[in-house]
Amino acid sequence: MPVLVVGSIGLDTVKTPIEEHADLLGGSASYAAVSASYFTGVNLVGIVGDDFPKTHVDYFQSRGIDLAGMQIAPGKTFRWSGEYHWDMNTRTTRSTDLNVFEHFTPTLPPAYVETPYVLLANIAPALQIHVLDQMRRPKLVIADTMNLWIETAKSDLLELLKRVDMLILNDSEARELTGETSLIKAGSSIRRLGPKYVAIKKGEHGCLLFGDNLFFSCGAYPLEDIHDPTGAGDTFAGGLAGYLASRNDSEITFEKLRKAVVYGSVLASYNVEAFSLERMRTLSLHEIEERYQMFKLMSHFEVLE
Amino acid sequence: MPVLVVGSIGLDTVKTPIEEHADLLGGSASYAAVSASYFTGVNLVGIVGDDFPKTHVDYFQSRGIDLAGMQIAPGKTFRWSGEYHWDMNTRTTRSTDLNVFEHFTPTLPPAYVETPYVLLANIAPALQIHVLDQMRRPKLVIADTMNLWIETAKSDLLELLKRVDMLILNDSEARELTGETSLIKAGSSIRRLGPKYVAIKKGEHGCLLFGDNLFFSCGAYPLEDIHDPTGAGDTFAGGLAGYLASRNDSEITFEKLRKAVVYGSVLASYNVEAFSLERMRTLSLHEIEERYQMFKLMSHFEVLE
Repeated sequence: MPVLVVGSIGLDTVKTPIEEHADLLGGSASYAAVSASYFTGVNLVGIVGDDFPKTHVDYFQSRGIDLAGMQIAPGKTFRWSGEYHWDMNTRTTRSTDLNVFEHFTPTLPPAYVETPYVLLANIAPALQIHVLDQMRRPKLVIADTMNLWIETAKSDLLELLKRVDMLILNDSEARELTGETSLIKAGSSIRRLGPKYVAIKKGEHGCLLFGDNLFFSCGAYPLEDIHDPTGAGDTFAGGLAGYLASRNDSEITFEKLRKAVVYGSVLASYNVEAFSLERMRTLSLHEIEERYQMFKLMSHFEVLE
Repeated sequence: MPVLVVGSIGLDTVKTPIEEHADLLGGSASYAAVSASYFTGVNLVGIVGDDFPKTHVDYFQSRGIDLAGMQIAPGKTFRWSGEYHWDMNTRTTRSTDLNVFEHFTPTLPPAYVETPYVLLANIAPALQIHVLDQMRRPKLVIADTMNLWIETAKSDLLELLKRVDMLILNDSEARELTGETSLIKAGSSIRRLGPKYVAIKKGEHGCLLFGDNLFFSCGAYPLEDIHDPTGAGDTFAGGLAGYLASRNDSEITFEKLRKAVVYGSVLASYNVEAFSLERMRTLSLHEIEERYQMFKLMSHFEVLE
């Protein structure tokens, strides 16, 4: 079954302590859609300007991503520029130019409204809600968010949370949203706001998954070098949603979600090995499965005798 | 087989955002010895003043800890006072009174020199080396350390590292010791300094274990409330060393070490549930095994079909 992915599509300029690259393919929907495409068909909803390079359109299409929902508007594509600090864990936004994204209304093509799996990648909660308003009884709705929306659009976000099955956010955002210092309390607290499941991403420390009296702790793949963390969270969300859509089980179980979290982590671990989506261009399903097995090995320990 | 534990024995005053308690049993050797005592006999090496409460001596003895190596010197017992910040992850030392610890020379009773398993809990590397100098061919030597020694006694520490099988330290210390921001690089880098195995503790994020092309990522137990993190690392080291000593396998394999890391994590997770060693006073082996199974469950995910 296909997954609908809505979010930003942009051109990024990224600086790390080692290199800087300009006008790279970026945006939450770009990362999430490409990641999901390893498992299932993707209906992409977003907006680009008339300057959006055809090579990127071709790349999306080569991944089997349906672009009927990608609007091309007169003007410039959304642009973001950021700089990572020496530890690669923190970054400063240097500039954000919304451009055509400023007046974006995600209107779904009729063929999209019955897509059973929905990933509301990171955009304003009001837009995420607007997409949900157009959907007909989706089977599973997953939303990603960020600190900006917690700080500037909290009431929209709280409204959204009542309507999603799963929320994905990072550790500092979970603390900010709930006012809890303990991530364990934060996870439970967010579940009380609506989502049945919560995934808290911890970057180099992996990810925590919360369900109803259920808990899963997933480590991060032991990478020696991270070249560009941009899009790691979006790639995680895309891999997770794509895997679940590809299964299309009659019931979403915690077991399946755990596996989806590992797949998401695998995809994200590959993504940060190169700038933008460069690593994804050569990534094979075989490599994904190989690293999935490595995750299994590195978290394995013996049962009690 | 017994484990020799050397380190500090002290009286702690600990303040958290919620409560404050004075003159609690503390010190790296106290935590490590009690933790190890769940698995095997312990030969404790340390020093206390003549003001050291008999109740603490009785407690050590009730745990089957041999105290022939615990010197009682005229004067006051080592005292430490610290305050945890709101997030319980960082703390400030309010005072350190070395007292009798200032002129401590860990001289081993003759009966201790052939103890096959050695845990050099956190004390000055020169003292850790002095203990090793007295040992006869120990089977496994594990050392714990801290930022203070990296900053003030680095050459001693580097000397020590050539003589230990395993180093335990926390994430910020691993970064400080190696100058590497990546914990994965730091782990490998420390192995090149001597220890065949390195365990990097990450507090609420669990622990990483490094061996020769071997890697294990262990999550932390999902505790909602942490009452006193003091001694968590020492308890971890004690549980780890105690379990390995109790096995006394002809060869220390990575498989056994993984299990030891989980046992250490279980002990530490219990320890932080109450101030000082209070939780340990009622902790049973059954509870330890129960939580070991929980660690197994919370890190489990399905293999590929």
